[in-house]
Amino acid sequence: MHRSRVYALLIDTPTPEAERAAAFWAAALGASARPLPGEEQFTSLHQAISGLVTAVQAVDDAPRFHLDIETDDVEAETARLVALGATQVSQWMECRVLRAPGGHLLCVLPVESDRAVFEAEANTWP
Amino acid sequence: MHRSRVYALLIDTPTPEAERAAAFWAAALGASARPLPGEEQFTSLHQAISGLVTAVQAVDDAPRFHLDIETDDVEAETARLVALGATQVSQWMECRVLRAPGGHLLCVLPVESDRAVFEAEANTWP
Repeated sequence: MHRSRVYALLIDTPTPEAERAAAFWAAALGASARPLPGEEQFTSLHQAISGLVTAVQAVDDAPRFHLDIETDDVEAETARLVALGATQVSQWMECRVLRAPGGHLLCVLPVESDRAVFEAEANTWP
Repeated sequence: MHRSRVYALLIDTPTPEAERAAAFWAAALGASARPLPGEEQFTSLHQAISGLVTAVQAVDDAPRFHLDIETDDVEAETARLVALGATQVSQWMECRVLRAPGGHLLCVLPVESDRAVFEAEANTWP
Protein backbone atom coordinates (compact mmCIF):
# COMPACT_ATOMS: atom_id res chain seq x y z
CA MET A 1 0.00 0.00 0.00
CA HIS A 2 1.27 3.48 -0.82
CA ARG A 3 -0.11 7.00 -1.18
CA SER A 4 0.16 9.92 -3.62
CA ARG A 5 -1.35 13.30 -4.45
CA VAL A 6 -0.91 16.09 -7.00
CA TYR A 7 1.64 18.40 -5.44
CA ALA A 8 2.56 21.04 -8.01
CA LEU A 9 1.94 22.61 -11.39
CA LEU A 10 5.19 23.51 -13.12
CA ILE A 11 5.31 26.14 -15.84
CA ASP A 12 8.33 24.90 -17.82
CA THR A 13 9.70 27.79 -19.84
CA PRO A 14 12.68 28.12 -22.21
CA THR A 15 15.51 29.58 -20.11
CA PRO A 16 15.88 32.87 -22.05
CA GLU A 17 12.21 33.68 -21.37
CA ALA A 18 11.86 32.22 -17.86
CA GLU A 19 12.37 35.47 -15.94
CA ARG A 20 9.80 37.31 -18.04
CA ALA A 21 7.38 34.39 -17.74
CA ALA A 22 7.73 34.33 -13.94
CA ALA A 23 7.03 38.06 -13.77
CA PHE A 24 3.97 37.63 -15.99
CA TRP A 25 2.47 34.69 -14.09
CA ALA A 26 3.09 36.31 -10.71
CA ALA A 27 1.28 39.47 -11.80
CA ALA A 28 -1.42 37.56 -13.68
CA LEU A 29 -2.28 35.34 -10.71
CA GLY A 30 -1.66 37.79 -7.88
CA ALA A 31 1.29 35.84 -6.53
CA SER A 32 4.78 36.77 -5.39
CA ALA A 33 7.67 35.34 -7.42
CA ARG A 34 10.45 33.88 -5.28
CA PRO A 35 13.54 32.23 -6.80
CA LEU A 36 14.34 29.05 -4.84
CA PRO A 37 17.72 29.39 -3.10
CA GLY A 38 20.14 26.76 -4.43
CA GLU A 39 17.73 25.76 -7.21
CA GLU A 40 17.87 28.81 -9.43
CA GLN A 41 15.98 27.16 -12.27
CA PHE A 42 12.81 27.34 -10.14
CA THR A 43 10.85 30.48 -9.33
CA SER A 44 8.06 29.77 -6.87
CA LEU A 45 4.77 31.60 -7.42
CA HIS A 46 3.58 31.85 -3.84
CA GLN A 47 -0.18 31.30 -3.46
CA ALA A 48 -0.81 31.54 -7.20
CA ILE A 49 -3.30 28.66 -7.11
CA SER A 50 -5.07 27.70 -3.90
CA GLY A 51 -3.80 24.37 -2.59
CA LEU A 52 -1.38 23.71 -5.45
CA VAL A 53 2.29 24.65 -5.42
CA THR A 54 3.00 26.61 -8.60
CA ALA A 55 6.41 27.46 -10.04
CA VAL A 56 8.13 28.50 -13.24
CA GLN A 57 10.99 26.16 -14.19
CA ALA A 58 13.62 27.27 -16.71
CA VAL A 59 14.19 24.43 -19.19
CA ASP A 60 16.20 23.83 -22.35
CA ASP A 61 13.10 22.73 -24.19
CA ALA A 62 9.81 23.97 -25.60
CA PRO A 63 7.30 25.64 -23.26
CA ARG A 64 4.98 23.22 -21.47
CA PHE A 65 3.21 22.68 -18.20
CA HIS A 66 3.77 19.53 -16.17
CA LEU A 67 2.28 18.08 -12.99
CA ASP A 68 4.27 16.84 -10.00
CA ILE A 69 2.86 13.91 -8.03
CA GLU A 70 4.32 13.43 -4.56
CA THR A 71 4.31 10.01 -2.97
CA ASP A 72 5.60 8.05 0.00
CA ASP A 73 6.89 5.36 -2.41
CA VAL A 74 8.39 6.59 -5.69
CA GLU A 75 9.02 3.07 -7.00
CA ALA A 76 5.48 1.87 -6.33
CA GLU A 77 3.84 5.03 -7.66
CA THR A 78 5.95 4.93 -10.83
CA ALA A 79 5.04 1.28 -11.34
CA ARG A 80 1.34 2.09 -10.80
CA LEU A 81 1.38 4.87 -13.40
CA VAL A 82 3.33 2.74 -15.89
CA ALA A 83 0.77 -0.04 -15.45
CA LEU A 84 -1.92 2.56 -16.29
CA GLY A 85 -0.15 3.35 -19.58
CA ALA A 86 2.51 5.97 -18.83
CA THR A 87 6.06 5.55 -20.11
CA GLN A 88 9.18 6.53 -18.20
CA VAL A 89 11.13 9.27 -19.97
CA SER A 90 13.99 9.97 -17.61
CA GLN A 91 15.14 10.17 -14.02
CA TRP A 92 16.29 13.41 -12.41
CA MET A 93 17.71 13.05 -8.92
CA GLU A 94 14.93 11.31 -6.98
CA CYS A 95 12.26 12.25 -9.51
CA ARG A 96 10.90 10.07 -12.28
CA VAL A 97 9.71 11.84 -15.41
CA LEU A 98 6.81 10.05 -17.13
CA ARG A 99 4.82 10.69 -20.29
CA ALA A 100 1.08 10.03 -19.96
CA PRO A 101 -1.08 8.50 -22.68
CA GLY A 102 -1.90 11.52 -24.85
CA GLY A 103 1.57 13.00 -24.52
CA HIS A 104 1.66 15.09 -21.31
CA LEU A 105 4.53 15.05 -18.83
CA LEU A 106 4.32 14.33 -15.13
CA CYS A 107 6.94 13.80 -12.46
CA VAL A 108 6.84 11.45 -9.49
CA LEU A 109 8.80 12.65 -6.48
CA PRO A 110 9.11 12.00 -2.74
CA VAL A 111 6.70 13.86 -0.42
CA GLU A 112 7.45 17.59 -0.47
CA SER A 113 4.48 19.12 1.33
CA ASP A 114 3.89 19.20 5.07
CA ARG A 115 3.25 15.71 6.36
CA ALA A 116 -0.16 16.78 7.74
CA VAL A 117 -1.26 18.04 4.30
CA PHE A 118 -0.07 14.86 2.64
CA GLU A 119 -1.77 12.64 5.22
CA ALA A 120 -5.03 14.54 4.89
CA GLU A 121 -5.18 14.74 1.10
CA ALA A 122 -3.28 11.86 -0.49
CA ASN A 123 -5.02 8.99 -2.21
CA THR A 124 -4.27 5.49 -0.95
CA TRP A 125 -3.47 2.78 -3.50
CA PRO A 126 -3.58 -0.95 -2.83
CA MET B 1 -12.46 47.26 -10.76
CA HIS B 2 -12.88 43.61 -11.67
CA ARG B 3 -12.01 40.20 -10.27
CA SER B 4 -10.51 36.91 -11.48
CA ARG B 5 -9.18 33.57 -10.27
CA VAL B 6 -7.68 30.39 -11.71
CA TYR B 7 -10.66 28.15 -12.40
CA ALA B 8 -9.43 25.07 -14.24
CA LEU B 9 -6.54 23.05 -15.55
CA LEU B 10 -7.26 21.63 -19.00
CA ILE B 11 -5.41 18.60 -20.32
CA ASP B 12 -5.65 19.27 -24.06
CA THR B 13 -5.14 16.00 -25.89
CA PRO B 14 -5.16 15.07 -29.60
CA THR B 15 -8.66 13.75 -30.30
CA PRO B 16 -7.63 10.18 -31.25
CA GLU B 17 -5.96 9.77 -27.84
CA ALA B 18 -8.36 11.78 -25.68
CA GLU B 19 -10.42 8.85 -24.40
CA ARG B 20 -7.34 6.91 -23.37
CA ALA B 21 -5.85 10.02 -21.77
CA ALA B 22 -9.03 10.65 -19.76
CA ALA B 23 -9.01 7.07 -18.50
CA PHE B 24 -5.34 7.38 -17.53
CA TRP B 25 -5.69 10.69 -15.69
CA ALA B 26 -8.82 9.57 -13.86
CA ALA B 27 -7.10 6.43 -12.60
CA ALA B 28 -3.82 8.23 -11.93
CA LEU B 29 -5.43 10.96 -9.83
CA GLY B 30 -8.21 8.93 -8.21
CA ALA B 31 -10.94 10.86 -10.03
CA SER B 32 -14.06 9.84 -11.90
CA ALA B 33 -14.17 10.69 -15.62
CA ARG B 34 -17.46 12.25 -16.72
CA PRO B 35 -18.05 13.41 -20.31
CA LEU B 36 -19.82 16.79 -20.25
CA PRO B 37 -23.32 16.48 -21.79
CA GLY B 38 -23.56 18.66 -24.90
CA GLU B 39 -19.83 19.40 -24.84
CA GLU B 40 -18.43 16.03 -25.81
CA GLN B 41 -14.89 17.35 -26.33
CA PHE B 42 -14.63 17.75 -22.54
CA THR B 43 -14.27 14.94 -20.02
CA SER B 44 -14.42 16.25 -16.46
CA LEU B 45 -12.09 14.60 -13.93
CA HIS B 46 -14.17 15.03 -10.81
CA GLN B 47 -12.07 15.92 -7.73
CA ALA B 48 -8.78 15.13 -9.45
CA ILE B 49 -7.08 18.19 -7.92
CA SER B 50 -8.43 19.77 -4.76
CA GLY B 51 -9.97 23.17 -5.49
CA LEU B 52 -9.19 23.18 -9.21
CA VAL B 53 -11.56 21.96 -11.90
CA THR B 54 -9.67 19.47 -14.06
CA ALA B 55 -10.73 18.14 -17.45
CA VAL B 56 -9.39 16.47 -20.57
CA GLN B 57 -10.23 18.40 -23.75
CA ALA B 58 -9.98 16.71 -27.15
CA VAL B 59 -8.17 19.07 -29.53
CA ASP B 60 -6.91 18.99 -33.11
CA ASP B 61 -3.47 20.04 -31.98
CA ALA B 62 -0.42 18.83 -30.06
CA PRO B 63 -0.83 17.75 -26.43
CA ARG B 64 -0.60 20.60 -23.92
CA PHE B 65 -2.00 21.79 -20.64
CA HIS B 66 -3.69 25.16 -20.35
CA LEU B 67 -5.14 27.21 -17.51
CA ASP B 68 -8.60 28.77 -17.45
CA ILE B 69 -9.03 32.06 -15.63
CA GLU B 70 -12.61 32.98 -14.74
CA THR B 71 -13.59 36.61 -14.34
CA ASP B 72 -16.55 38.91 -13.85
CA ASP B 73 -15.27 41.07 -16.73
CA VAL B 74 -13.75 39.22 -19.69
CA GLU B 75 -12.82 42.43 -21.53
CA ALA B 76 -11.06 43.99 -18.56
CA GLU B 77 -9.25 40.79 -17.57
CA THR B 78 -8.07 40.23 -21.15
CA ALA B 79 -6.82 43.82 -21.32
CA ARG B 80 -5.03 43.39 -17.99
CA LEU B 81 -3.23 40.23 -19.15
CA VAL B 82 -2.34 41.77 -22.53
CA ALA B 83 -0.88 44.78 -20.68
CA LEU B 84 1.24 42.29 -18.69
CA GLY B 85 2.65 40.87 -21.92
CA ALA B 86 0.22 38.20 -23.14
CA THR B 87 -0.95 38.13 -26.74
CA GLN B 88 -4.45 37.23 -27.88
CA VAL B 89 -4.48 34.09 -30.03
CA SER B 90 -8.16 33.56 -30.72
CA GLN B 91 -11.68 33.85 -29.43
CA TRP B 92 -13.92 30.83 -28.84
CA MET B 93 -17.48 31.62 -27.87
CA GLU B 94 -17.16 33.87 -24.83
CA CYS B 95 -13.59 32.74 -24.12
CA ARG B 96 -10.40 34.56 -25.08
CA VAL B 97 -7.37 32.41 -25.76
CA LEU B 98 -4.09 34.11 -24.82
CA ARG B 99 -0.44 33.15 -25.06
CA ALA B 100 1.68 34.13 -22.06
CA PRO B 101 5.26 35.38 -22.27
CA GLY B 102 7.24 32.13 -22.47
CA GLY B 103 4.70 30.45 -24.72
CA HIS B 104 1.98 28.89 -22.53
CA LEU B 105 -1.73 29.10 -23.27
CA LEU B 106 -4.44 30.43 -20.99
CA CYS B 107 -8.10 31.16 -21.51
CA VAL B 108 -10.17 33.95 -20.01
CA LEU B 109 -13.85 33.10 -19.52
CA PRO B 110 -16.90 34.30 -17.60
CA VAL B 111 -17.37 33.04 -14.02
CA GLU B 112 -18.09 29.30 -14.05
CA SER B 113 -17.77 28.32 -10.40
CA ASP B 114 -20.33 28.87 -7.67
CA ARG B 115 -20.64 32.55 -6.94
CA ALA B 116 -19.69 31.99 -3.27
CA VAL B 117 -16.44 30.30 -4.30
CA PHE B 118 -15.64 33.07 -6.74
CA GLU B 119 -16.41 35.79 -4.20
CA ALA B 120 -14.28 34.13 -1.55
CA GLU B 121 -11.24 33.33 -3.69
CA ALA B 122 -10.97 35.76 -6.60
CA ASN B 123 -8.31 38.45 -6.73
CA THR B 124 -9.50 42.03 -7.12
CA TRP B 125 -7.80 44.23 -9.72
CA PRO B 126 -7.95 48.02 -9.80
